[in-house]
Amino acid sequence: MKRILTGDRPTGKMHLGHFVGSLKNRVSLQDEYETFIMVADVQALTDNYNNPEKVRDNVLEVTMDNLAVGLDPKKVTFFIQSQIAEIAELTVLFMNLVTMEKVMRNPTVKTEIAQKFKDGSVPFGFINYPVSQSADILFLRTHLVPAGEDQRPMVELSRDIAEKFNATYKTDVFPLPDLKVGEFGRLVGTDGNAKMSKSLGNTIYLSDTPEEVEKKVMSMYTDPARIKATDPGHVEGNPVFIYLDAFAPNDQRSTINDLQTRYRGGQVGDIEVKKYLAKILNAFLAPIRARRAEYEQNPDLVREILRQGTEKTRREAVETMKLVRKAMKIDYFA
Amino acid sequence: MKRILTGDRPTGKMHLGHFVGSLKNRVSLQDEYETFIMVADVQALTDNYNNPEKVRDNVLEVTMDNLAVGLDPKKVTFFIQSQIAEIAELTVLFMNLVTMEKVMRNPTVKTEIAQKFKDGSVPFGFINYPVSQSADILFLRTHLVPAGEDQRPMVELSRDIAEKFNATYKTDVFPLPDLKVGEFGRLVGTDGNAKMSKSLGNTIYLSDTPEEVEKKVMSMYTDPARIKATDPGHVEGNPVFIYLDAFAPNDQRSTINDLQTRYRGGQVGDIEVKKYLAKILNAFLAPIRARRAEYEQNPDLVREILRQGTEKTRREAVETMKLVRKAMKIDYFA
Repeated sequence: MKRILTGDRPTGKMHLGHFVGSLKNRVSLQDEYETFIMVADVQALTDNYNNPEKVRDNVLEVTMDNLAVGLDPKKVTFFIQSQIAEIAELTVLFMNLVTMEKVMRNPTVKTEIAQKFKDGSVPFGFINYPVSQSADILFLRTHLVPAGEDQRPMVELSRDIAEKFNATYKTDVFPLPDLKVGEFGRLVGTDGNAKMSKSLGNTIYLSDTPEEVEKKVMSMYTDPARIKATDPGHVEGNPVFIYLDAFAPNDQRSTINDLQTRYRGGQVGDIEVKKYLAKILNAFLAPIRARRAEYEQNPDLVREILRQGTEKTRREAVETMKLVRKAMKIDYFA
Repeated sequence: MKRILTGDRPTGKMHLGHFVGSLKNRVSLQDEYETFIMVADVQALTDNYNNPEKVRDNVLEVTMDNLAVGLDPKKVTFFIQSQIAEIAELTVLFMNLVTMEKVMRNPTVKTEIAQKFKDGSVPFGFINYPVSQSADILFLRTHLVPAGEDQRPMVELSRDIAEKFNATYKTDVFPLPDLKVGEFGRLVGTDGNAKMSKSLGNTIYLSDTPEEVEKKVMSMYTDPARIKATDPGHVEGNPVFIYLDAFAPNDQRSTINDLQTRYRGGQVGDIEVKKYLAKILNAFLAPIRARRAEYEQNPDLVREILRQGTEKTRREAVETMKLVRKAMKIDYFA
């Protein structure tokens, strides 16, 4: 059975953007792949090193979000990154296979450095995180990474490192992993920004209450060129209609088509469309909320899922490191 | 008992420069400190990643050099860096506590990059090695590092990281380590270059035969201003006299003083001084060679010293990581 590895930084609750970009694929692929979900606390520490409480507190939150969308803990393995020493070992070894120049050219790293470290003093660990992430992906000899489009440079780096490792040490220990992006790719924020992101404050969380969802939807950005309900409106690029396409079940297609036609013709107000969207989203979120509520009442169960998953993952990591040490001829005591 | 950590890259046999800079102190301090000697294979791989055989082959060599100079395996713990996963874990965590700018300012890294990577494509791992070395020093909660003067920037970085870690996570897990440089500091090469170094081809190895030593000494650089034996010569900065000061036993002091006087007065030829130096060096090296010969006949014993030492070191490393995880609040399953 081929393997999936993906995961989340425990820095906050997960939102609709995470669902569209990655969670949906995780759920639909969990029967087809041996799936590992990593709580990326070490990666979260690269820009939260002085706030470990935040990271710690969100370990259970992101795990519950994954369970809530329908990942089955009987099939899927959940683990915590910091408890797998072998990831750090591979990170250090992989750093030799990548040049400084290559890491600094990574577009995601470049963008994030510009956003997060305006004073120019960038923690070295932050620059290293694509290498670290390659170790995350490769230590399980992963085949597929369901993640957002912004993860493409990381997956490509992990392929480069896997190829270089295999060629340098004459081995085939690492398969070349592929990225699988969600059908809708990146989800726009409620404010019309290209990306839904906690730091932009334009998110709808998977754990939002029906009232919170309704409130956020009613204040959503739609078509800025449309002043009155009788003005013809744009459907393309309009976040409200994008969300309808992404989250409405198939049986709502004719209703949505009708709304689109009326919107374009200036025959429906934003309020009606938004009320409909709020209903659709709350129907979509209802079973997710219900599963989450069950896990919230039993945090010890979530901790046990993580504990057992981490144990299982460590056994796999030890296996990979045996192969790595052998290939690198540093298996002195084997 | 306070702790010493120091070590060597397994990239070749050790030479007189290593003895003067660090080995001599290791021997004289082994009763006073709990001493750990690291075979730094991971560090050696940063610029030998595509030649792991070289690294592997030299693991026993550097261990034997350490044993040969008189480190007692009953007192001193020898271990192999790559077998201690906790060092890699600390490296990854420490990278968050150092800025990119700071690492790039490290003078030793700067110099070595200029020397070793003339095409400008520097492995990321090479730039990271001061952070990695800080993890080497700190994972044993080391108090003292006997090493050469060129290691000062590394020990200073490890102090900075220890301070920042302790302050950030409100702990005192890491003492601030001190550097102890050998009495003679850096030893000049046989060619008069400021540093004895394998890559410069100006070394006398601890394992050289008496004939090799004599040959190397007879072709040593002395005083370039002196053409004939009757010209007055310079003793200061003259490698031959520096070696006499560094390696002759105290009972030779009056002979050396006499040679110096005659050398200054143009009353002794280079050949006489060099023959005397060769005798002194071979007398110094005789017991080292004898001990080395014993270990060379029993490589399994050396491997066993490394195996047991690595096991012991790992237990200490696990202890440190427990404290680190607790301080960082990532001790989820404790």
